[in-house]
Amino acid sequence: MESVVLDGRSLTLDKVERIAKHGALVSFDPGAEEHVERAHRVLNDLAAKDIPIYGLNRGVGVNKDRLISADFFEAYNRNLIYSHSSGAQPLADDEQVRAVMAVRLNTLLSGGAGIQPAVVRMYRDFLNKGVHPVLPLRGSVGAADITLLSHIGLAMIGAGDVRYGGEVMSAEKALMQAGLQKLTLGPKDALSIVSSNALSAGTGALVLQDCRKLLATADAVFALSLEAFQGSTDPLDEAVHRVRPFEGASDSARAVRLLLQGSQLSDADTAERIQDPLSFRSACQVHGAARDALAYAERLMLIQLNSPDDNPCIIEDEGRIVPNSNFDVTTWAVAFEMLGIALSHVSRISCYRSLKLGTPAFTGLARFLTPDPDQAIGFGTIQKTFTSLDAEIRHLSNPVSADFYSLSGDMEDHATNAPLVVRKTGEIIRLLYYILGMEAMHAAQAVDLRQGLRLGEGTQHAYSAIRSAVSFLSADRPLTPDIEAAAALLESGALSRIVLEQQGGTSYAK
Amino acid sequence: MESVVLDGRSLTLDKVERIAKHGALVSFDPGAEEHVERAHRVLNDLAAKDIPIYGLNRGVGVNKDRLISADFFEAYNRNLIYSHSSGAQPLADDEQVRAVMAVRLNTLLSGGAGIQPAVVRMYRDFLNKGVHPVLPLRGSVGAADITLLSHIGLAMIGAGDVRYGGEVMSAEKALMQAGLQKLTLGPKDALSIVSSNALSAGTGALVLQDCRKLLATADAVFALSLEAFQGSTDPLDEAVHRVRPFEGASDSARAVRLLLQGSQLSDADTAERIQDPLSFRSACQVHGAARDALAYAERLMLIQLNSPDDNPCIIEDEGRIVPNSNFDVTTWAVAFEMLGIALSHVSRISCYRSLKLGTPAFTGLARFLTPDPDQAIGFGTIQKTFTSLDAEIRHLSNPVSADFYSLSGDMEDHATNAPLVVRKTGEIIRLLYYILGMEAMHAAQAVDLRQGLRLGEGTQHAYSAIRSAVSFLSADRPLTPDIEAAAALLESGALSRIVLEQQGGTSYAK
Amino acid sequence: MESVVLDGRSLTLDKVERIAKHGALVSFDPGAEEHVERAHRVLNDLAAKDIPIYGLNRGVGVNKDRLISADFFEAYNRNLIYSHSSGAQPLADDEQVRAVMAVRLNTLLSGGAGIQPAVVRMYRDFLNKGVHPVLPLRGSVGAADITLLSHIGLAMIGAGDVRYGGEVMSAEKALMQAGLQKLTLGPKDALSIVSSNALSAGTGALVLQDCRKLLATADAVFALSLEAFQGSTDPLDEAVHRVRPFEGASDSARAVRLLLQGSQLSDADTAERIQDPLSFRSACQVHGAARDALAYAERLMLIQLNSPDDNPCIIEDEGRIVPNSNFDVTTWAVAFEMLGIALSHVSRISCYRSLKLGTPAFTGLARFLTPDPDQAIGFGTIQKTFTSLDAEIRHLSNPVSADFYSLSGDMEDHATNAPLVVRKTGEIIRLLYYILGMEAMHAAQAVDLRQGLRLGEGTQHAYSAIRSAVSFLSADRPLTPDIEAAAALLESGALSRIVLEQQGGTSYAK
Amino acid sequence: MESVVLDGRSLTLDKVERIAKHGALVSFDPGAEEHVERAHRVLNDLAAKDIPIYGLNRGVGVNKDRLISADFFEAYNRNLIYSHSSGAQPLADDEQVRAVMAVRLNTLLSGGAGIQPAVVRMYRDFLNKGVHPVLPLRGSVGAADITLLSHIGLAMIGAGDVRYGGEVMSAEKALMQAGLQKLTLGPKDALSIVSSNALSAGTGALVLQDCRKLLATADAVFALSLEAFQGSTDPLDEAVHRVRPFEGASDSARAVRLLLQGSQLSDADTAERIQDPLSFRSACQVHGAARDALAYAERLMLIQLNSPDDNPCIIEDEGRIVPNSNFDVTTWAVAFEMLGIALSHVSRISCYRSLKLGTPAFTGLARFLTPDPDQAIGFGTIQKTFTSLDAEIRHLSNPVSADFYSLSGDMEDHATNAPLVVRKTGEIIRLLYYILGMEAMHAAQAVDLRQGLRLGEGTQHAYSAIRSAVSFLSADRPLTPDIEAAAALLESGALSRIVLEQQGGTSYAK
Repeated sequence: MESVVLDGRSLTLDKVERIAKHGALVSFDPGAEEHVERAHRVLNDLAAKDIPIYGLNRGVGVNKDRLISADFFEAYNRNLIYSHSSGAQPLADDEQVRAVMAVRLNTLLSGGAGIQPAVVRMYRDFLNKGVHPVLPLRGSVGAADITLLSHIGLAMIGAGDVRYGGEVMSAEKALMQAGLQKLTLGPKDALSIVSSNALSAGTGALVLQDCRKLLATADAVFALSLEAFQGSTDPLDEAVHRVRPFEGASDSARAVRLLLQGSQLSDADTAERIQDPLSFRSACQVHGAARDALAYAERLMLIQLNSPDDNPCIIEDEGRIVPNSNFDVTTWAVAFEMLGIALSHVSRISCYRSLKLGTPAFTGLARFLTPDPDQAIGFGTIQKTFTSLDAEIRHLSNPVSADFYSLSGDMEDHATNAPLVVRKTGEIIRLLYYILGMEAMHAAQAVDLRQGLRLGEGTQHAYSAIRSAVSFLSADRPLTPDIEAAAALLESGALSRIVLEQQGGTSYAK
Repeated sequence: MESVVLDGRSLTLDKVERIAKHGALVSFDPGAEEHVERAHRVLNDLAAKDIPIYGLNRGVGVNKDRLISADFFEAYNRNLIYSHSSGAQPLADDEQVRAVMAVRLNTLLSGGAGIQPAVVRMYRDFLNKGVHPVLPLRGSVGAADITLLSHIGLAMIGAGDVRYGGEVMSAEKALMQAGLQKLTLGPKDALSIVSSNALSAGTGALVLQDCRKLLATADAVFALSLEAFQGSTDPLDEAVHRVRPFEGASDSARAVRLLLQGSQLSDADTAERIQDPLSFRSACQVHGAARDALAYAERLMLIQLNSPDDNPCIIEDEGRIVPNSNFDVTTWAVAFEMLGIALSHVSRISCYRSLKLGTPAFTGLARFLTPDPDQAIGFGTIQKTFTSLDAEIRHLSNPVSADFYSLSGDMEDHATNAPLVVRKTGEIIRLLYYILGMEAMHAAQAVDLRQGLRLGEGTQHAYSAIRSAVSFLSADRPLTPDIEAAAALLESGALSRIVLEQQGGTSYAK
Repeated sequence: MESVVLDGRSLTLDKVERIAKHGALVSFDPGAEEHVERAHRVLNDLAAKDIPIYGLNRGVGVNKDRLISADFFEAYNRNLIYSHSSGAQPLADDEQVRAVMAVRLNTLLSGGAGIQPAVVRMYRDFLNKGVHPVLPLRGSVGAADITLLSHIGLAMIGAGDVRYGGEVMSAEKALMQAGLQKLTLGPKDALSIVSSNALSAGTGALVLQDCRKLLATADAVFALSLEAFQGSTDPLDEAVHRVRPFEGASDSARAVRLLLQGSQLSDADTAERIQDPLSFRSACQVHGAARDALAYAERLMLIQLNSPDDNPCIIEDEGRIVPNSNFDVTTWAVAFEMLGIALSHVSRISCYRSLKLGTPAFTGLARFLTPDPDQAIGFGTIQKTFTSLDAEIRHLSNPVSADFYSLSGDMEDHATNAPLVVRKTGEIIRLLYYILGMEAMHAAQAVDLRQGLRLGEGTQHAYSAIRSAVSFLSADRPLTPDIEAAAALLESGALSRIVLEQQGGTSYAK
Repeated sequence: MESVVLDGRSLTLDKVERIAKHGALVSFDPGAEEHVERAHRVLNDLAAKDIPIYGLNRGVGVNKDRLISADFFEAYNRNLIYSHSSGAQPLADDEQVRAVMAVRLNTLLSGGAGIQPAVVRMYRDFLNKGVHPVLPLRGSVGAADITLLSHIGLAMIGAGDVRYGGEVMSAEKALMQAGLQKLTLGPKDALSIVSSNALSAGTGALVLQDCRKLLATADAVFALSLEAFQGSTDPLDEAVHRVRPFEGASDSARAVRLLLQGSQLSDADTAERIQDPLSFRSACQVHGAARDALAYAERLMLIQLNSPDDNPCIIEDEGRIVPNSNFDVTTWAVAFEMLGIALSHVSRISCYRSLKLGTPAFTGLARFLTPDPDQAIGFGTIQKTFTSLDAEIRHLSNPVSADFYSLSGDMEDHATNAPLVVRKTGEIIRLLYYILGMEAMHAAQAVDLRQGLRLGEGTQHAYSAIRSAVSFLSADRPLTPDIEAAAALLESGALSRIVLEQQGGTSYAK
């Protein structure tokens, strides 16, 4: 069984994916556990001195003016969990729940919360035993996901529901079956559980990881389209990218060059052709723009995953607790918004390539790639399908992070809508798999119609993968099943694997 | 068993709902059937004269330059249905499928298509026997929903899948079980099946009908909030609306006045109070703006439901067939976009009312309507829940109708994305039920905290309905179940019924 | 000298334009003046009884809890004008200032304000003597334009600046030169001056009037393009619109049919052609969608122009004053947002027609309508010009009305951004004149290249008008001057006049 | 006289600003000039071999299939400049024209174009002699600004207009007065002049430089507001940012800490206060998000400024010319879109701080910071002013880069709208100066009302600067002049200078 060691400072997208999607077990770096204990002692020492501490001996939000007496700690912390459980459907799936718990666990290890060590162990146990709290995805404004993460706290104290062993049951029952004791929350524990962006960050980490595969897929589909189009490889020329060193574009061009190795394209004398439509010529620049945006978002996300977003935050080595706004995620929320916009370009340029592949004036092939102009219509109406999905992506790419209210007695007058920002980015990616899937259907069809092409080694793999899911269109047939099959194939990683392996392999792409 | 007579010119939103949601049977007005037969004869006569007719003896889209010979009619029409079946998930639910078929059936009766009468009867039989083709909702750009309506044609010729008797099965099997013969399509039949906006119009009619209930619900929730707020009724004064006669605002104010009849509010001397926050004072103007927008959209939709959107269109009394663009729905697509924007105002003003109800300076009640300031937190964090849903509505309200491509060999260079426009409007409505549900939770809580209020007759009903789903918050408890229950209650029509009945009753509100 | 009689209930867009743009003098219907005096007496009577009245003996906004004593009336009203003068650049031009004053004057005549009659006369005198207060356009959230209309009040009390006789000078000096006495404001007068939507409504009325001309222009340009394209007139067929009676589309088709009377197009046997690209075929439906949206917006605007938007409002015949929200303009603000979206369709469909006119496969003419394929490039790069302006229109068409804050001690928690909504709609119109101007350049060029076409009577006029501003492109030349000339020609009404006259003439089109 | 040496690889935002705004002269690094000459020889050698080269011996865009014979080179290049001159108003101001020419000059020095060295020298001469071609800003889709940069080419060949010595005159006349010979364009020269993103990049570089000052200003205004609010400095704590090392937030916090040095704030015992509203607490995180976005955009822009964006591109050391898409700027166009979204957060958080400063419950000061609650209204209505500008920023922050068409015979099917993206970002910045100016008015007023505060050294400077432009509001007065004065002060760099100097000084901030 695969396992991931958490230490609060080295979590990666890949590790999140392994825990979330592949069921990897988690364990603690010993130093991290000690860190958690020391921080908890600092908190207790400060509390003992009767220093006012938000969420410990004082209320939260505008209730910061309310004193909370030590007698009331347990009830207060339970009530906080209760009253903060205010979500709306849809529910997170198991993979998302696991990502969220893994992220919150790691940021707790990074120190800062001063949380009771037993709570930390409970996150680990939930992950390792497959206890997955029922977790709504709507209801947080993204200035810490307090209304949603509370549901994990609920389960820890034996309230609410969880999914366990494939069914939904009461947390109480699941804890029992899993051999876990429900927790009694101590001072500030409830705040430490809810006051984090782990929902946005956990789901966001999965989205970024998906996006990496999506962009590898986009390169592979483009490479095959270029073969199908018999287009020029000049714009992929290494020198072109060397003189204008945008990293994403350079990387994309390199990936495509590798895929095309061995192709007859490189033999072609394209001098008279001079140049192709921009949907082909600029593909690597546009895919590269999304790669650049992704790299920026990922860089920020890695800070998020490996630092405390707690307020107040224990500065353990100084024995202090400091009120702050480290739960503010504006910087990476807007990076996700940019990523969505960049992906809308990836979508548009794919749509235009598909349109070109259906146009005889550009390909020399039959209109709409019909196998028989007299007997079959071919890929005509499907143009409406992918462009209508593209319109939806365009719509999703509109920003939403700045649309917030002043809440909680006017104390909470900034927010980011991070969970929604993440969710719409994920929806864009899912729609893009459809769009690229339909491009792949065009590309494979054109390759077949051309007969006898010598494809590159990588594009040959890509072609075969597509043909394993969608057969040659030899006569008109309902295309809806093909559209679903192509999207599913791409989403499975069948094409991204080729690209990512050729890049030297990243384990998640197995 | 309820039944609806269709004649091609008197379909209403209410009738669509009855067929779609209440399983009403459909029958034909005899005149309409004759009309269909005459139009079909006109088409055959013209075809016999060898006049070039789009989709009959010529191809469709850019293929209009292709001749289709009579020998090939059946194969061509089958191929057209096949190649146009190009949708993507999600699938329409049964209610949506029924609405779509009812609308297409009625517009066929309005004349214009020249379709084979047997096809018309098949729509009726599908509705009356509950044969519901599997119909994807994504994939149409809304310049006729040709990629999706084709799936109904598939089922008629015994291909593809349907839902029948509660399960998904092959159309072939379902037709047999239902005692129906699969059709053989004749000249232009396939085009007549696919070239219509019935998917957008059918789902759109349901959305408008829902919206009517939503706006009645909004008035009822506001009326209860006004009681809870002990706000001024001056802005509801009939004279105020008489001098500035915006219809929607006047109707909304009238509805709220009726709900409040008998309330102690009307006894209040509010002179010193002078006026309330705009979220209360302007409620009827804002709800009224949405009512005006809805009335505009509905007026256009009724034309859509009762006129042919066929191209080419038979002008039966003149014995002509005329190429045209009557499938263009820009005018009502943009009306839906306006409606979405108006609903985003309804959402915001509800959110602000909930915030006010939680603010002691405005209500004189405890902060966040807590039942016990020392022991319970109350409705504090839930502010994040409804405002985060409001942000999503704000996002959905962005326009998308003009984001289209030039397709089909550059022949199809305008579109409307009508299915997506309809879908996002429906999502706004669903989210608004949550938001109004949370306002209703606040209002009922404040009413309870005030103790002994004499409510209006209508608001008392509304209060009771809410309390049947969500109990008084006497101590902190997880709010997620309450949030879902309140939304479900409102969506069920529990509150809109009160308003609509008081308006003299519309049958759909039963 | 032209003159307009105002009576508070019959102001039209046309009259606003005449006052604003053509310098028409205004006078009062005698009944209206008496009405103003009676309402003022009602106000005084109520005030004498010491009833709390917002903005009279009580402060405004959250300051409604402040008493204002009679001794302090003058100072209070001056301070209110002062403190409400909070605008930002740009400044309204003279035409806009006049429209704003005319609208506020008329709504004062509709009763409701209870304002001192001398103030009413001052609006008239400002209009008739050309005293135009310096009026910023930015700074109002559109829940009454209080921050901006205050600048008119400033001028009336001899403060701030005005434009008079062509120069900017102090109001004090201008009043003297114009022979006017500065006013002393009495109880509630300041509130009556500022608490109105006259800025949004006045500038909005001008925008709607411009839009009417724009849409007439669009029909004329399309008609000429249809000649240039030698397209089919089938989609204009009266029967097509009779069976699907969307009003805007039917009106647009009628306008185009009239323009084409006498054209050789009607002789053409287009049977084999079957149908044109949608940018031609759907033109009237799309222009019609904008006409429908305009009609809706205009209908609401006429209510706005002819009813009081005062809060509180005198109900003169009942001797009451009622607090209200009649300054809420959500209903027509969202209508303007819809209009902008509809206009973005008009823009896109014009762009696609221009593209088609440059495409040999559709026209049979030389690529990019070059007069000499060997020596000139023609209308190739200009495609970037009109489509880049179209992108700007797409951007402007995004909604903004619901993006407001809770202000004034949380009393003002709804708004509409009406001035910005109006302004962006106006910008869309201005950009559309450019886009249609470039389409007109294409159409005229194609007509010339075809040589010897017999145009319709109306389209011949349109052609001649265009050629008076932009000559045939016989060789490459810088196109920037042509682009500006064509836009200016259209904006001057040269083409709309032809359409509007043929419709029976509306006086404003002279 | 200041001067800047250009070498094609070390241009910075600061240098662009010095050339554009401070009239710095430009000279060439000798190596760069030789590079240009060598590249030109490579081009000539290739042309002599009759290799098909886009824009040299072949047409451009879809006309790439047209041969251009050597006899026709001059005429072709002139026609290309002519036909590409297709812009629309507004016109660039002198500073923008200079930035554009400086950027194009530097990218020509980076090699790639193979342009005639005389053209390169002409850019230098235009800059050094102040010959500024009349340059429209609208009309480019941002896939190279070919429709606009052409106007610089026009002036070089003695056509079109320029601004010279303060007046607009014909280029012919200006060249004569400036002692310059008009150019005769050789092979590919016209393409090299127009095929560049220098308009977007030049105006974009100025916008980024402005943005840097804006963000420094935002920190200074916030620091003063924190004093005015007597808020907690805990969230600025270095440790807080050390544990969560987002660079922008850390830098912003450091800047604010430096400004506050010496303030009495640091003495305060804020323990009981616990924490401030997020508009204060999260200020550095939000300003930091914009700083991060700016850093990302700047990093990409520096690549743009120092690399060839020519197509085809000379690879001089390999003696090749390669067709490519290096004019694609998607990556930095979407970075600008993100920056706009981040700035909308900066705007919102400033608005909320101003609102808080006007709220007695938070400040203990009089409502709306009135100097006299009985006699003056103070900063109440101005809330509408800044929030209405914020709504406009929200609107501007919507994306537009992906809204493009397929143009030029379907060859140009991707674009970025980069000029519009840059322009809207610039408008956001200009509006933000207003918003921050109004916050500064609030902060200074509150400082004055508190009397006797000991400000930090930096905030004292900021306070004094504001008071030099806007005096204490001792009684109500029209605020419009103050609003304009405050915005102008901030835009002048008065406050950013304080921050930037304290950071060690960047020359542009002098």
